[in-house]
Amino acid sequence: MSPTRPLTVVTPGDPAGIGAEILLKAVAARASANIVAVADPKLLEDAGQLLKSPPGVRKWQPGQEIIPGTIACVPVPLRVRAVPGRGDPKNAPYVLETLQRAVDLVLDRHARALVTGPVNKAVISASGAHFSGHTEFLSMVAGNAPVVMMLAAPGLRVSLVTTHLPLRAVADAIDVQRVEETIRITHRALVEQFGISQPRLQVLGLNPHAGESGHLGSEDQQRVQPAIDACRSDGLLVVGPVPADTAFTPPRMAQCDAVVAMYHDQGLPVLKHMGFGKSVNITLGLPFIRTSVDHGTAFDIAGSGSADCGSMQVALDTAEHMAQCARLPLAGR
Amino acid sequence: MSPTRPLTVVTPGDPAGIGAEILLKAVAARASANIVAVADPKLLEDAGQLLKSPPGVRKWQPGQEIIPGTIACVPVPLRVRAVPGRGDPKNAPYVLETLQRAVDLVLDRHARALVTGPVNKAVISASGAHFSGHTEFLSMVAGNAPVVMMLAAPGLRVSLVTTHLPLRAVADAIDVQRVEETIRITHRALVEQFGISQPRLQVLGLNPHAGESGHLGSEDQQRVQPAIDACRSDGLLVVGPVPADTAFTPPRMAQCDAVVAMYHDQGLPVLKHMGFGKSVNITLGLPFIRTSVDHGTAFDIAGSGSADCGSMQVALDTAEHMAQCARLPLAGR
Repeated sequence: MSPTRPLTVVTPGDPAGIGAEILLKAVAARASANIVAVADPKLLEDAGQLLKSPPGVRKWQPGQEIIPGTIACVPVPLRVRAVPGRGDPKNAPYVLETLQRAVDLVLDRHARALVTGPVNKAVISASGAHFSGHTEFLSMVAGNAPVVMMLAAPGLRVSLVTTHLPLRAVADAIDVQRVEETIRITHRALVEQFGISQPRLQVLGLNPHAGESGHLGSEDQQRVQPAIDACRSDGLLVVGPVPADTAFTPPRMAQCDAVVAMYHDQGLPVLKHMGFGKSVNITLGLPFIRTSVDHGTAFDIAGSGSADCGSMQVALDTAEHMAQCARLPLAGR
Repeated sequence: MSPTRPLTVVTPGDPAGIGAEILLKAVAARASANIVAVADPKLLEDAGQLLKSPPGVRKWQPGQEIIPGTIACVPVPLRVRAVPGRGDPKNAPYVLETLQRAVDLVLDRHARALVTGPVNKAVISASGAHFSGHTEFLSMVAGNAPVVMMLAAPGLRVSLVTTHLPLRAVADAIDVQRVEETIRITHRALVEQFGISQPRLQVLGLNPHAGESGHLGSEDQQRVQPAIDACRSDGLLVVGPVPADTAFTPPRMAQCDAVVAMYHDQGLPVLKHMGFGKSVNITLGLPFIRTSVDHGTAFDIAGSGSADCGSMQVALDTAEHMAQCARLPLAGR
């Protein structure tokens, strides 16, 4: 393992999607050799034919050097041939095995960070496997660690208390414990994985104007404020509940390392506005670093060679940066 | 009335707030003489003492010239002396009279646009008057016109289907009629008051990912989509439901004249992020142009001379720009 550039392990995701293509493109554009893919080597080689100068694919096992200009590959065999654009439930066990092997590498400290390519939940579920998403899978294999979804872009990080819920279910899903847990996990990750010694957080109110002293809903006083107070009493630098249309003004953002939003469409529009093409999904609360591309399998363009590797590049850069910032030994079991 | 610069009538708002001060500062900074205030002239003169070079105050009536370097004033007497920082319900009738007189001026076509300064709803309500806000008052005096709240900043306009509701009440408040009405009012205003002949609108979904084909809530298919379809069948250029974290990406915004958001914290964080200090509140659906400052009475700094007139300047600029763009004769009765 390189002493200066910690290894990052990557799962390209659904073999019928664009994952292998964008990984090879991203690796081809990088000077350093610190990436290990967990995939079928043949899949990577086939995807390489979409590039003018693809990196060579070399089988790899822990402890071996990585040769610059190549991509190291921990081989996992496809179950059936992968046809670009046609997700096949028969390959779901392959997808899950690549994930499990990748997690083993970080838990055994052979790699410092995990980057995941796009999978298709419907395809995996059609195989009969229980899989509700990368985040849930990773939480489970890490001993059911409570996790937080963070989106990051240059200049802004947003953690979400709730993620993919119908809007009408959001208010009831917000409780003191969940808000407090999200604040604490975000705080801890900023210290341990981002190297920020005294992170400053803004916590948004659930309701417009943060409830306007109860005139626009009681949750901000009854569920958000107590969570903030509990964290502040432990010395965390947390302000809020802040109205969502105040928190993202430039002066407020300049004094803040992350925003804790109550729900998806409250926190992510600004992030995607600012970070278009440069945003990355990060899972906080795991005993290792995990980032992800910010898009799906793109079955419609898979195999065409036209996929943009920008999000994969940002996911790799972020994982590497976090691994270099990380203060504490990560993973291990 | 100046043939090139249509008159704008301004109500400074609560006489104990910063309204008169910011109006005078904004007028002092303008080269043109096209502003009429409806206020107690003494209040304006007192506020002028907070400025180094205040504009002179001249009583004015329709048809008279406005002298450059002065502020024209339609006099309305205060009911009791106004003490900066101390909202007094005894002056509520004064505030409401200034509004009514200002509306009369636009309805009688003596002015093309109305700009309102900040009032305090609690102070007015304490007087026993029924007043739930400027927007509702103006809708009522315009014959209960259905109105839409739009916030605008350079590069972005956002209309809201719902405004100041607790989050848990939002989903039930969204119905086909309300969404369709918001789209149509926004479209019409962009044509008639902004001079955009073929406005392009993005309508956001209510749920994250616009409901993801029903997996994250049914409202987008059952309530938002039919409203969009009805408008499209009339030739309106409307797309959606668009996920809120997609709609504000720069490529999408570049092809769009306004975004119709379902609720406050879905649409306004990006707007306030982009338009910090330059955003303006616009009421659509009235038979006249109306803009407003984007802040409150600021009782805490009233009388100190430290109030920032930036929002008032933007409200005046926007009203004037709209009056110049307006295609159709406005107001009249």
